[in-house]
Formats: sequence, C-alpha cells, structure tokens
Amino acid sequence: MRAFPILAAAFMLAGAAPEKKPPTAAEIIAASPPGAWLTIASEDLLVMELAGGGRVVIQLAPEFAPVHVANIRALARSGWWTGSAVYRVQDNFVAQWGHGDNGPPLPAGVIKPPPQEYWRPAKGLAIRPLGFADAYAPAVGFTGGWHVAYSPKRGWATLSHCYGYVGVARDVAPDTGTGEELYAIIGHAPRRLDRNLAVVGRVIEGIDRLSSLPRGKPPMGMYEDTKKNVAITRVRLASDIPLPDRPSFQVVNSASPTFAQLLALRTGHADAFYKTPPAGIDLCSAAIPTRKTP
Amino acid sequence: MRAFPILAAAFMLAGAAPEKKPPTAAEIIAASPPGAWLTIASEDLLVMELAGGGRVVIQLAPEFAPVHVANIRALARSGWWTGSAVYRVQDNFVAQWGHGDNGPPLPAGVIKPPPQEYWRPAKGLAIRPLGFADAYAPAVGFTGGWHVAYSPKRGWATLSHCYGYVGVARDVAPDTGTGEELYAIIGHAPRRLDRNLAVVGRVIEGIDRLSSLPRGKPPMGMYEDTKKNVAITRVRLASDIPLPDRPSFQVVNSASPTFAQLLALRTGHADAFYKTPPAGIDLCSAAIPTRKTP
Repeated sequence: MRAFPILAAAFMLAGAAPEKKPPTAAEIIAASPPGAWLTIASEDLLVMELAGGGRVVIQLAPEFAPVHVANIRALARSGWWTGSAVYRVQDNFVAQWGHGDNGPPLPAGVIKPPPQEYWRPAKGLAIRPLGFADAYAPAVGFTGGWHVAYSPKRGWATLSHCYGYVGVARDVAPDTGTGEELYAIIGHAPRRLDRNLAVVGRVIEGIDRLSSLPRGKPPMGMYEDTKKNVAITRVRLASDIPLPDRPSFQVVNSASPTFAQLLALRTGHADAFYKTPPAGIDLCSAAIPTRKTP
Repeated sequence: MRAFPILAAAFMLAGAAPEKKPPTAAEIIAASPPGAWLTIASEDLLVMELAGGGRVVIQLAPEFAPVHVANIRALARSGWWTGSAVYRVQDNFVAQWGHGDNGPPLPAGVIKPPPQEYWRPAKGLAIRPLGFADAYAPAVGFTGGWHVAYSPKRGWATLSHCYGYVGVARDVAPDTGTGEELYAIIGHAPRRLDRNLAVVGRVIEGIDRLSSLPRGKPPMGMYEDTKKNVAITRVRLASDIPLPDRPSFQVVNSASPTFAQLLALRTGHADAFYKTPPAGIDLCSAAIPTRKTP
C-alpha cells in the first residue's frame, strides 16, 4: 500500500541503485509477444453506453453459454436495451440492468427459456490448473482468457463468478433467464452462484462505471427512487459498430508463457514490500490482463 | 438474482402455500438471543465523518494490533484527521485516507514505528474453524466477530483482508505504518496482504460510502485532481462522543449457535433458487452480521 510511488522516490533520494529484481507485471506485459494475446471477435464484444457518458464493454463467452449469448446478440441487434437502465446496485455483490418487469416485447430469435447453461463439459477445453486449494470446486484454473471452476472427475466446467464477470439474472427454476436482465459482479466473488446461473462473459472495460455507482436500498440494492436508475442509451455488438469507431480488445491467453510468468509473480511476490510471501492464490485474485488491440 | 421479490409475488399469484423451509438469514437473526451478540466497546469504535454527510464506522481490533490501535486512538483523540481526505480509490482493491505526505505533526503518544503487528499468537483465541480449503493459509475461521487465517501448527493468527476490513498503509520495511494512513478493502479480498500489513479492524457501517466513490487514476487509484479528494471532517472514538449521540453496535459472536446456523445456511443453500448447492464457502464470503445495539 502507499508504497510504490514513494518507494521509487526513496530509491532516488538515497541514491541507491535499484537491485536486480524480477520484472513487474507491467514489464512482463510490455515484453509479451503478440502470440501471448487473443484478439476478441467483434461478435463477442458487447458495448453498453451509459447516459452521461462512459461505456462498459463485455466479452461474451459463447463457448460456455451459446444459447444465452445468441439471445444477447439478438437483443443487442434489435436495440432492445435502449431506454433500459442499471436499476440495482447491491454493495459487495452486483450491479444489474435491463428493463426490469417493464420490457418491450422480445425480438425474434430470442429463445425463451434457454437451456440451463450453468456449466458445460470440461472436455474440449484446454485448462491450465491454478494448483491451489479451492473451497467451491475440486479444481480451478484458466482457459483462453477465462477463469473456470471444474471437476476433472465429473467432467463439468463453469465460468466462475469472479469480479467483473457477467451473468444472466433469472427467477426460480424452471426459469433460466433470457439474457435481457444481466448483472456484473462488483464485490468479493460470490462463488456460491457458480453452476447456478448462466455466466455469459466478463467486463473488460468500464467495470468502474458500475462499481462506483451509488448503492440501492438494502438488502437487494434496488433503487427505490427510480430517478436514480442509470439510463442505458444503447447496447451494440462491436461487429455492428462502423469500423472507424469499432473497439477491439485482446486478452492474455492463459495458455501462454506470459500468463505463467504473471501468475508466478502474483504467487511468489518476490519484492521488498512483502514480508511474508503468500502461500498461494485464489482463482479470482489471478488477473488475466486485457488491452486495446495495438 | 432478481428472484426474491418476484418469487414472493409468484407464490401469491399461484395461491400456493409456502412450503416448510429452513429459516432465512433475516429470520435467524430476528430469532437470535441477546447472548449471540457482542457489544463493541466504545473505545473500539472509530467514527469517521465525511464532507457532504455520511459516516463510516470502524470496529477496532486491539486484540490483534494493540500498538497500532493505540496510535489510532491517539490520532483520533487529538483530532488529527480533521482536514484529511480519502485520496485514493483503486477499483477492486482499496479506498485509502489520511493526510498523505502533508500531515500535521503526530500527537503525543503515537509510537513510530510500531512493531510489526501483522499476526499474533493463535494461543488465547477461541477459533471456530471454517472447515473448508483455503489457498492462503493452513486454516481459516472466526473468533469473536472476526475473520481469521491461522496456522494450528505454527501458532500464528491474523485478521484477513476481507471486504470492509481496514489496514494500516505503510512503506517498505522497516516502516510499519503509524496508523495515520488507513485503507479499507472495497473489492475481492486481497488475501495476499495477510500477514504483510497490520489489519486494525473492519467497517461495520458505511462501507458503501467508500466503495461507491469515483475511482482514481490507475494503477494506484490516486485522484490526480485533488479536488476529487473526499474531505474528512472529523474522526472520533465513540467513547469521546457525548452520550445522546454516541453510536453503539453489536456483532454476532462467531462462537454462538446463531452464527453456526447462519454459516450452515450459507453453505447449504437449501432453497429453491440454488440448483447446485455450493460444496463449501470461502472465508470472506461468510458474513458476520452487525447491528445497532437494540
């Protein structure tokens, strides 16, 4: 804490030569080869614009929830979310948006209800195991740019409810949620939700636009005064945004040596600040960096 | 998600009698005996008032960091924080406050540097083990109203960096932080900090006042424009607040049957919403409720 800018200044003041030390995360990323990055397909980027400026960009995960993601694409293409709002912000839990109970008719192509895409077969996924104990799943790790919990024995895999991940709100079963109401995690990972809701992606830009919103009324965080709702002006797929303005992002491939280096740095913490390097790391604390496509 | 108010309505609409089901957390708390609660000593309550209204109340933990807490009490009693500010808000990490590098002289009684109160002997603490695997510590659990990581074999125990916990910012060793700069966790628990900084308590009221602040400039979250700093009008110990206005809070005793019931509810999730009850729970997801003293 407090340390880094002051630390740099202290080194300068003391005239001490910085000792040879392992590269920082920023240095590892700066030195990463292009092959360490996966460019996200423009059909997998959901761009949500908020009233008052600012946007939230979400990477969709069709490999985990194909029907829910197809629904979300159909909703985006029809402009369904225009005029919707972020209407729920529950501290240390979620920000949630959509039309609530007052949505316009769903556009053609939206499947209701979609299947329970709460997990998928682990088979077919190349998973890098994290290698540390987890309270929720037999194993946790990474595939592509994703955080996953899985069971090598039972063969399931699921995206985890880590900070910034986006899921589909639903009612009790048999409802499975269409995708019209989405939530993003803005607090400590509520991993108890894993395998109970369809996780459809994660926020790769602008999570702070959601996490810094005023909290709604406990316990659910709904804004009592709907004037506090944060209007959503439009939501589009990046593939529907004309090329000059189309955003493009990359995510570190968790199979890459670059990610292995970043993970080792995070678990080893071989720097002057840590008196007691941590014995391990939990899934959601292992960051998978993203960047705008250079 | 979305479920609870709508669920209640659905039951009513269908005319179905609610089935016999386990009590909710709210019902467990409502039925809890007075003995399930610990009343926090007024010397252990730090009341921070922010410009523009709103306050943050912190329970101090002298049993874990006695010298740091004594420093904090001395700082509060001298009015040292008046005119300080929240100057750092880093998304998914911390909000931090104090005078930064421009503080007034420290009042008498502040020990600088305090000892490294980054952990303490587990001996003397009655700990209820959580009983699920943890990536950071050999064991985790609860004592009094606190979340702790500990080693039964090596005999150390530490407060964990869970959401809302408050620690003492410091520079690199040998600095140990005086207590003048404090941070609160506003994101996924950065457990890697456990045993590396002095945790001095946790926010029991008003964490949303910190967690919903605009984020500062990445990567550290300092406000570049210091006009964005959130001024702190004063910080007092509750024991120094005249009786009619003195706040009083209680926390559930983790040794109580009430807490055991809450924990079982959280891990069992025997309700209609969960298709796959979670196999466990992580330390920081296990809430220890607080309330105003009735």
